[in-house]
Amino acid sequence: MAFLPLWLRQYQRRDLSDDALAGTITAILLVPQALAYALLAGLPPEVGLYASIIPPIIYALTGSSRTLAVGPVAVAAVMVAAALANFAQGDPALALAGALWLSFLSGVFLLLFAALRLGWLSHFVSHPVLNGFSTGAAITIIGTQLPTLLGISISSQHAFIGAINALLPELSKTQQLTLISGATVILLLLISRHWLASWLKHLGMSASSAGLTTRVTPLLIVVLAILLSMHFDGAAHLAVVGGIPAGLPMPSLAFLWVPGWQSLVSSALLIALIAYVESLSVAKLLAMRRRQRIDANQELMALGSTNIASSIVGGMPVAGGFARSMVNFEAGAKTQLASIITASWVALAALVFSSGLAPLPKTVLAAIVVVAVTQLIDLRSILTTWRYDKRDGLSQVATVIGVLVLGIEPGLMIGIGLALILYLHRTSNPHIAVIGQLAGTEHFRNVLRYSVQTWPSLLIVRIDENLYFANTPQVESQLLSLVADHPHAKHLVLVLSGVAAIDASGLELLESLHVSLSEAGIQLHLAEVKGPVMDRLQSTHFMRTLNPSHIYLSTHQAVNHLIQSSSEATL
Amino acid sequence: MAFLPLWLRQYQRRDLSDDALAGTITAILLVPQALAYALLAGLPPEVGLYASIIPPIIYALTGSSRTLAVGPVAVAAVMVAAALANFAQGDPALALAGALWLSFLSGVFLLLFAALRLGWLSHFVSHPVLNGFSTGAAITIIGTQLPTLLGISISSQHAFIGAINALLPELSKTQQLTLISGATVILLLLISRHWLASWLKHLGMSASSAGLTTRVTPLLIVVLAILLSMHFDGAAHLAVVGGIPAGLPMPSLAFLWVPGWQSLVSSALLIALIAYVESLSVAKLLAMRRRQRIDANQELMALGSTNIASSIVGGMPVAGGFARSMVNFEAGAKTQLASIITASWVALAALVFSSGLAPLPKTVLAAIVVVAVTQLIDLRSILTTWRYDKRDGLSQVATVIGVLVLGIEPGLMIGIGLALILYLHRTSNPHIAVIGQLAGTEHFRNVLRYSVQTWPSLLIVRIDENLYFANTPQVESQLLSLVADHPHAKHLVLVLSGVAAIDASGLELLESLHVSLSEAGIQLHLAEVKGPVMDRLQSTHFMRTLNPSHIYLSTHQAVNHLIQSSSEATL
Repeated sequence: MAFLPLWLRQYQRRDLSDDALAGTITAILLVPQALAYALLAGLPPEVGLYASIIPPIIYALTGSSRTLAVGPVAVAAVMVAAALANFAQGDPALALAGALWLSFLSGVFLLLFAALRLGWLSHFVSHPVLNGFSTGAAITIIGTQLPTLLGISISSQHAFIGAINALLPELSKTQQLTLISGATVILLLLISRHWLASWLKHLGMSASSAGLTTRVTPLLIVVLAILLSMHFDGAAHLAVVGGIPAGLPMPSLAFLWVPGWQSLVSSALLIALIAYVESLSVAKLLAMRRRQRIDANQELMALGSTNIASSIVGGMPVAGGFARSMVNFEAGAKTQLASIITASWVALAALVFSSGLAPLPKTVLAAIVVVAVTQLIDLRSILTTWRYDKRDGLSQVATVIGVLVLGIEPGLMIGIGLALILYLHRTSNPHIAVIGQLAGTEHFRNVLRYSVQTWPSLLIVRIDENLYFANTPQVESQLLSLVADHPHAKHLVLVLSGVAAIDASGLELLESLHVSLSEAGIQLHLAEVKGPVMDRLQSTHFMRTLNPSHIYLSTHQAVNHLIQSSSEATL
Repeated sequence: MAFLPLWLRQYQRRDLSDDALAGTITAILLVPQALAYALLAGLPPEVGLYASIIPPIIYALTGSSRTLAVGPVAVAAVMVAAALANFAQGDPALALAGALWLSFLSGVFLLLFAALRLGWLSHFVSHPVLNGFSTGAAITIIGTQLPTLLGISISSQHAFIGAINALLPELSKTQQLTLISGATVILLLLISRHWLASWLKHLGMSASSAGLTTRVTPLLIVVLAILLSMHFDGAAHLAVVGGIPAGLPMPSLAFLWVPGWQSLVSSALLIALIAYVESLSVAKLLAMRRRQRIDANQELMALGSTNIASSIVGGMPVAGGFARSMVNFEAGAKTQLASIITASWVALAALVFSSGLAPLPKTVLAAIVVVAVTQLIDLRSILTTWRYDKRDGLSQVATVIGVLVLGIEPGLMIGIGLALILYLHRTSNPHIAVIGQLAGTEHFRNVLRYSVQTWPSLLIVRIDENLYFANTPQVESQLLSLVADHPHAKHLVLVLSGVAAIDASGLELLESLHVSLSEAGIQLHLAEVKGPVMDRLQSTHFMRTLNPSHIYLSTHQAVNHLIQSSSEATL
């Protein structure tokens, strides 16, 4: 039984009713979203359903989170749409094959990351960048839904700005009925989200029933829209979803014979990265609330298998969605059995009701997407980030603007790249402080911030950054100008308490500094060299030229020794 | 007179003879190299001469180095060849226009760097990467000269491996006379470089005359080859340089009307970067020997103007060459007057002797190139770097292999990128040490390396890296597992002596750590927070939730206070 996941082996009967309820509520939310996100990705609606059946079950059996709800998500869907624009060139069959390739390749990347222990790569998507990306992607998604909401057909555009530009001249072609239907749905959903629960409670309904009713709203709207559309022959007046094949497709690897996958590799990598980062952060958040643990590497393997499974059963790329997981969690899900129950409901819907979806107006699904993604827009956090850290704020703003102007993928890459460049820029210009002794202590601090004791013959300098190639020229020129500013200094003590690494360029800097100082009659000393740094320096030419007695455990020892020996010399 | 450079305003008469001699010696070295590097770049030989007249004079009047010899260099030449392969598609007129565009654009980039104070970007080319790049470029250059040396004509290839692959099946077409001529010249040059001076001194010649004779060898070989070729009708048996227009071209901006420059932008950026990094490091090296100063920003402006000037007078991109500058320096150059004298000699050569160059066999120039660039191959430094720092060694090896397999530009970018990724990887996995007090001092050190005092209720942890997005997940999990390993700990003291920056993600880490610890009944304390870090934290939500008395100037103070208060609690 060891192949069964821990939660299943230890399953407690009393969790069953909680899991069943949570699984059902999540399914009610998931069915309309699955249809909508498939359309958002530019795929037939059933692809969203297929991605919501087998993949969540695979995740349930392999993942380390107990409550993460895995399935199609808005951000991955719009990334698929962006990747397919070039690949499919409008051919629906090619678009479907491309979507399966994207699921498959992102799954392979996730498994590769797991095998090569490359999960740390995901840390390079900083929180401000991820936040900016979500905001930008949500606005882009709204932009992609506008033509559907207005009943205008224009060619799809990569970026929000382009989409708006293409839409503006066509505005006169707006179809009133489509617009009114969509706007009504948006209004109803917003009312439901913001006020319905409190109204119902006001009317005497229990909080949990009120919450449940709120969650049912999208499904109710879909059913109502279908009924209305059937009655008034909606297909004659509005764009409708159209025929959906009944039942489930057979598992197939046929898409692997569609050529041109090479052009999807970089998109699949970005989708894998975002799917992993989003899933992991949601999983961690939920696990923390119940003191459970998330194993980052197991998550990589689980999400990788899940995406490969999705491609085989005809589904789009999947991830752990934030909103859906929160609903699942708050509805009381205890284990992944809830996800399996959700999947069973979706399967039932796909088998039994899919033919009934044909008259559903597309504008209803577009409205559901728009309302779902508005939650991702977080402009306030830009301000908070900016106030604390200009560099982080800049990467966040650049990501939002990059996504809106250049598109989903370039925007994300600009954000990731800029955050790294700005971090490197920060380390390339390190803080260097002349320090002195705090009276009555063995502690040394910046002479500019504290009233400390100094000695004319001693220049004690603390370097607050690793010595590496990007900052050695800066550090060298700063140190040389400090030496020039202290003409009486006979000893330069470099305090390396803030230096955790010295690379080959840093070593060259120390060597050339030692030579220049010797020629100027100044002795070089090192203090507070960390263990790992000392291990490396040990066998270098630099260490052989430096007097070993010039290396001190602490700044205090260095100063004591130098003051003593210089007063002896004076005697 | 303020527009004249400092060295000219303060010119001392006694430096004149030194400058004249050094300038003449450098010219003797420069003329054959200028012809050879132009051919290496895939350009007519006179382009190398044009780049050696006006550009060095512009640099002499604007640069901050007194002895840097600016002109065509091998590495920039092979970069030009790589960039032009696609641009010119074999059309000589287009190749020339492209080379002028490359000079112009790299000059514009250098001026832009100066204006935007972006010189620090060049620090991201680490020494190991630059070294690996020079080695790889030198081997590539030798590969490009092999067909000329063997008298085989094949289409030019981007990378060394490709060039060798293309050459191997053609080896049977080797022209014996060409091969023998080239091999003889290589042999003569190597003998001259390694043994001639000591032989001549052995024969009683003074050291300086012997050195001078060595330097004259290439020019002597060129003259001799021309005479032999004229006598035996070389053009009938060998590929020769052919007609070179006499005189100098009129300054012209006509190349700016040749379209397609956009595709050269990234190559021009890389040429600008390498030209600047090489020139600056040579200039610094020479300046250090005579206690002179180099102004990095002035160098950017000088090199930028010089390259723009080169494009206008029909020359190729220029930089400060290592070998040539060393010859200039060692021949006794005191000021940039030496460079002006060099330029005058080259101008004379271009005006008077250029028509005489026609019968010169190309294989002679190829041999000069090969011998010149062998000095750039430095395989031993790979070993030294590898021994000290595996990451630096890896970037150096990757650069060499990248250049040889993929070509000059991709190899360089791989090296720069890999060095950055490896540095970030290092910082993403920081060293975290539990520390204790060294007996008899106020100094705290790693419990694993030193015999130190610890207290069961205190967990004192030193974080040896900035807290930023790439390492916060690691730091968090390491801290939480340290806390789990110390079940009796009531206080966690984070010693931030190694933390010079905390970004938004780092701040989130501190906040969530504070919450988790509080829930587990453990108090969080900070010690040795650096001034700049404290300034930022001051106004954050985290600081409002953390008790201000939980921040200590030194670890010793924190421990003193916590031990005292806990013993009071026990009483």
